[in-house]
Amino acid sequence: MDLLKQKIVKEGKVLSESVLKVDSFLNHQIDPELMEEIGREFTERFKNAGITKILTLESSGIAPSVMAGLRLGVPVIFARKRKSLTLIDHLYSAKVYSYTKKETNEISVSKDYISNDDIVLIIDDFLANGQAVDGLIGIVNQSGASLAGVGIVIEKGFQDGGSIVRKRGIRVESLANITSLADGKVTFNEEDSSI
Amino acid sequence: MDLLKQKIVKEGKVLSESVLKVDSFLNHQIDPELMEEIGREFTERFKNAGITKILTLESSGIAPSVMAGLRLGVPVIFARKRKSLTLIDHLYSAKVYSYTKKETNEISVSKDYISNDDIVLIIDDFLANGQAVDGLIGIVNQSGASLAGVGIVIEKGFQDGGSIVRKRGIRVESLANITSLADGKVTFNEEDSSI
Repeated sequence: MDLLKQKIVKEGKVLSESVLKVDSFLNHQIDPELMEEIGREFTERFKNAGITKILTLESSGIAPSVMAGLRLGVPVIFARKRKSLTLIDHLYSAKVYSYTKKETNEISVSKDYISNDDIVLIIDDFLANGQAVDGLIGIVNQSGASLAGVGIVIEKGFQDGGSIVRKRGIRVESLANITSLADGKVTFNEEDSSI
Repeated sequence: MDLLKQKIVKEGKVLSESVLKVDSFLNHQIDPELMEEIGREFTERFKNAGITKILTLESSGIAPSVMAGLRLGVPVIFARKRKSLTLIDHLYSAKVYSYTKKETNEISVSKDYISNDDIVLIIDDFLANGQAVDGLIGIVNQSGASLAGVGIVIEKGFQDGGSIVRKRGIRVESLANITSLADGKVTFNEEDSSI
């Protein structure tokens, strides 16, 4: 997705060979017009998959998901993050380790909002080691719903989350797939279909 | 705002005389079409205020804010919540006590995204005791920006947050203002201009 890649090149801050900061349009300040375009692109890619629900994770997944939900005409559920869950009654839950924050959170979704007749699209802001997406897939599996696929705004293709998820036969669509952050420079996977 | 009030009456769960749960369309599952209408209504109310930035708080403020930001053509910044801030360098921050969760969080915004020439609209999902909004106002004041007002999706008018903020001369626009949750029933302030 060209507009997104241009934004990453222009405003993204490469902090190390593995850390890209996009606080100016996605993770702290949000660019609503870009989110609308991202929602449009996810819709284009998944419009024939029969999606009934979008599942994401607070907080940075919410904006792109709501824009996709608006176009697909389906509700968005955001999984909540907690240091620990005291009550797991009536919840689907999974443990998610964050390499960035070096902490484990429990993520959870009420059983009220996903059921076994749903077809779920998972959307998240980043895919790197795949911990968050793996937790969200676990929640979909617990619910008995079908998983249509995973939509990612920015994939760090040089980390192994994406390939692990794809090897399980799950469709992963990344709007920008970064192959390297070496020398302070963002390099994209030019085979990406959206270019 | 009629559509919102109907949704509250139909799907809101009155858990006590002070607790209303709207997890089916705002605080856990999100209704994107309703969020679009909410964004449209905030835009209608604040379109002549010269807004340059919307400031909200993760996570439930994000969806209505992004929809308002799209229509107003301005970026959205979401303040982050932390149990404690270790580094406050280059941050505006405030302490916010949550009566619901009985815990104090620090909320913070990078100095990169609000400056003294901004005109800020604060948007949040709920206004009850006013702790969160007060923290967000504190952040706007620290930045030296002008505060255009506060847009609230659901105000609990029977708690004193709204009147305290209004007494400071700050414009507060609530799309649904609840005067009572007695007897398991939601009663709205019928003087609300949006009915």
